[in-house]
Amino acid sequence: MKIINANDMKKSITDKGMIDSIEEAFFVYAERNFTMPERLAVKHQEDTMLYMPCITSGSIGTKVLSLIPQNPERGKPLIDGLMILNSREDGTPVALMDGQLLTAMRTGAVGGHAVRHLAYQDSQSIGLIGCGVQGLYQVKYACSERNIKTVYLYNASKKDLTSYIEKIRLETGNPSLKCVICSSARETALNSDIIITATTSKEPVLPNDPDLFQGKCIVAVGSWRPDMREIPEAVWQAADTVYTELPYACEETGDLAQPLKSGALKEHQVRYMAGYLQDIKDGNGEALGSTRFYKSVGMSLFDLVVATNIYRSAEEKGLGTDISW
Amino acid sequence: MKIINANDMKKSITDKGMIDSIEEAFFVYAERNFTMPERLAVKHQEDTMLYMPCITSGSIGTKVLSLIPQNPERGKPLIDGLMILNSREDGTPVALMDGQLLTAMRTGAVGGHAVRHLAYQDSQSIGLIGCGVQGLYQVKYACSERNIKTVYLYNASKKDLTSYIEKIRLETGNPSLKCVICSSARETALNSDIIITATTSKEPVLPNDPDLFQGKCIVAVGSWRPDMREIPEAVWQAADTVYTELPYACEETGDLAQPLKSGALKEHQVRYMAGYLQDIKDGNGEALGSTRFYKSVGMSLFDLVVATNIYRSAEEKGLGTDISW
Repeated sequence: MKIINANDMKKSITDKGMIDSIEEAFFVYAERNFTMPERLAVKHQEDTMLYMPCITSGSIGTKVLSLIPQNPERGKPLIDGLMILNSREDGTPVALMDGQLLTAMRTGAVGGHAVRHLAYQDSQSIGLIGCGVQGLYQVKYACSERNIKTVYLYNASKKDLTSYIEKIRLETGNPSLKCVICSSARETALNSDIIITATTSKEPVLPNDPDLFQGKCIVAVGSWRPDMREIPEAVWQAADTVYTELPYACEETGDLAQPLKSGALKEHQVRYMAGYLQDIKDGNGEALGSTRFYKSVGMSLFDLVVATNIYRSAEEKGLGTDISW
Repeated sequence: MKIINANDMKKSITDKGMIDSIEEAFFVYAERNFTMPERLAVKHQEDTMLYMPCITSGSIGTKVLSLIPQNPERGKPLIDGLMILNSREDGTPVALMDGQLLTAMRTGAVGGHAVRHLAYQDSQSIGLIGCGVQGLYQVKYACSERNIKTVYLYNASKKDLTSYIEKIRLETGNPSLKCVICSSARETALNSDIIITATTSKEPVLPNDPDLFQGKCIVAVGSWRPDMREIPEAVWQAADTVYTELPYACEETGDLAQPLKSGALKEHQVRYMAGYLQDIKDGNGEALGSTRFYKSVGMSLFDLVVATNIYRSAEEKGLGTDISW
C-alpha cells in the first residue's frame, strides 16, 4: 500500500492535470456507470464522521472525514480525514492520501474547471470572498486557467491576510502576483472579472445589485447545505443560466434550493456540466450568456477520479511511501 | 499516523487481552453511550464495499471491507480491508490496521469469550466444523481459555488439512496439540466438549440429534444473513437459552431468525451477553443450563474496542510503522 501525504500529493499532479481530472469525472458521470450513494454521516455527541464512497468501472475509493466542531477554537481544522483507494480488480487497499487536502484540491479544481469553460479568455482579475483554505485553492486553480494579474481579497472577519497572500503567491507559483485587500465585498466584486465565494455564510455575501455581476464569471463553492447561502437574487437577474454538477445540487445548497423555491430561478435555467461538456464534444456547444454562474456542491466521484490520477502520477514519479501490508 | 500490519497486530496483543477487549466492548454496549449505525453496503456490478463505523466516548473507528466474489477462484481472499482509528479528541486519523485479520481475530475472540463464560471448566476437546480462516481463530482463542488436549476437524469439502493443522499449532502456541480429522460432522460433535461452527452454509451443518449436544458448549459464528444457517433445531431441544450479542442478531442470522419464526425458539430464551455480564458484576449471576449455546453475528463495536487496545499495545511496545502525515 502506498501512503501519499500532503507534500507528495502536491508534487504528484499539475494544476492542469487536476482540472483535466475534474473534466474526466464529468465524462464518467455522463456515462452513468458508477455507484455513488448519498454520503453517510455518523454523529456521536457533537462530532460527526462522514463517509463518501464511490465505485466506477475503473476505481474504488472512499473519503472518510471527521468533523469536530470544537476544533477551530483549539486552532485545529474543523474537517480532517483520509482518502482510501482500493484495487478495482481484487479490492485490496492500494493507496491512502490526505483527505483534507484532497477536498481542498478537488474543490479548487472544480472551480478552475468552471473558469476554464465559463470565464472570459481575457479575464485578468479574481475577487475572492472568504479567505480560508477552500478560497486559497480556488485562486490557485483559477490562476492556472487564465492570465490573472490581480487578486482582490475580502474576508468578513478582519483577520490579518499577510501570510494568506504569501500562500496565494506560493500556490500559484507567481511570487509577484498582485494581491489587494478590499474593505467590502462590493469593492471586491466591482474590481474583478472572476468572482469566487468560499464562505460558510447563511446570508448572501455579495450585494443584491445585478450591475455588479454583469459580464462576469461567478463561482460559488461555499453553500453546501439548504440553510447556507452566498449568492443574492440579483445574480439571477444578470445570469440566464446556472451551471452545476448534478440534480442533487438543487436540493443540497441554499444557493439553488432557495431561489428555486422563491421562483427567482426556474428549473429550465439549471444546466448540468456533464451535459454541457458532452454537447461541446458532440459539436453542439451552446452560446454562453454574458454573465456566467457556476455553483458547486461537490461529489465523491470527483474525489475518486482525482485521487486515482494522483495515485497514478505518484506511481510514475516514485512519490509516496510504500509500506508492507 | 501509525500503520499496524498483520504481523505487528499479532505481536501487540495477547489472546487473553483480546478476550478481555471483547468483555470491555460488552460493558461499553451496556452503557449505551455509543453510535453504531447499520453497516453501509455499496455495490457496483458484482462487487461490494462495506463500511462499519462506530463512535464511543473514547474512540472513533471504521472498518472498511471489500467483498469481491471473483476473488476465491483467483486464489485471493473474498474479503479484504482495513480498520481506521481516529483521535477521539480532534478526529485526525491515528492508526490503520489490517481489516481482514482484525475481523478474524475479533470474531475468534468473541468465540473465546463465549468459551470463557459458557464452556465447562474441564472441557478438553474442541470440534471445529468449517476449516477456514474464521475457524482457525475460533480454535486459537478457545484454546486460550480452556486446557484443550484435542481438536477434531471437519470440513465439508474434502481439502487437505495438513497445513491447516500446522497453522492451528502455530496460532495456539502448542506444537504438540492433537488434531484429528473426522469423516463427518456427527463424529466431530460426538467427540468434542466444545463444538464450533464457522461455515457459510445455508443448511444446518450438524445432525438434528439433541443427544449430540447435551452437556456441551456450542459456538456458532458462520451464519450472518437470514438465509444462512448452521444450527439444527435439535440444539433448541438441548439448550434452554441462546446467548448472543444484540437484538439485531435475532433478525440478521438465520440461526435465530428461522427458529424464532418457526416457534422452535421463543423470544424469552434469547439472552444478551451484555446483560448477562452485568448481572455477574452485580452479583446476580444465573445458573447455566447443562447445554450452552452462543450465537455470534458480530458488531462494529467489537472491532472498535479491539482495535483501540491493539493500537495502545502497539504504542507501548513500539510496534507498527509511524508515517509522516
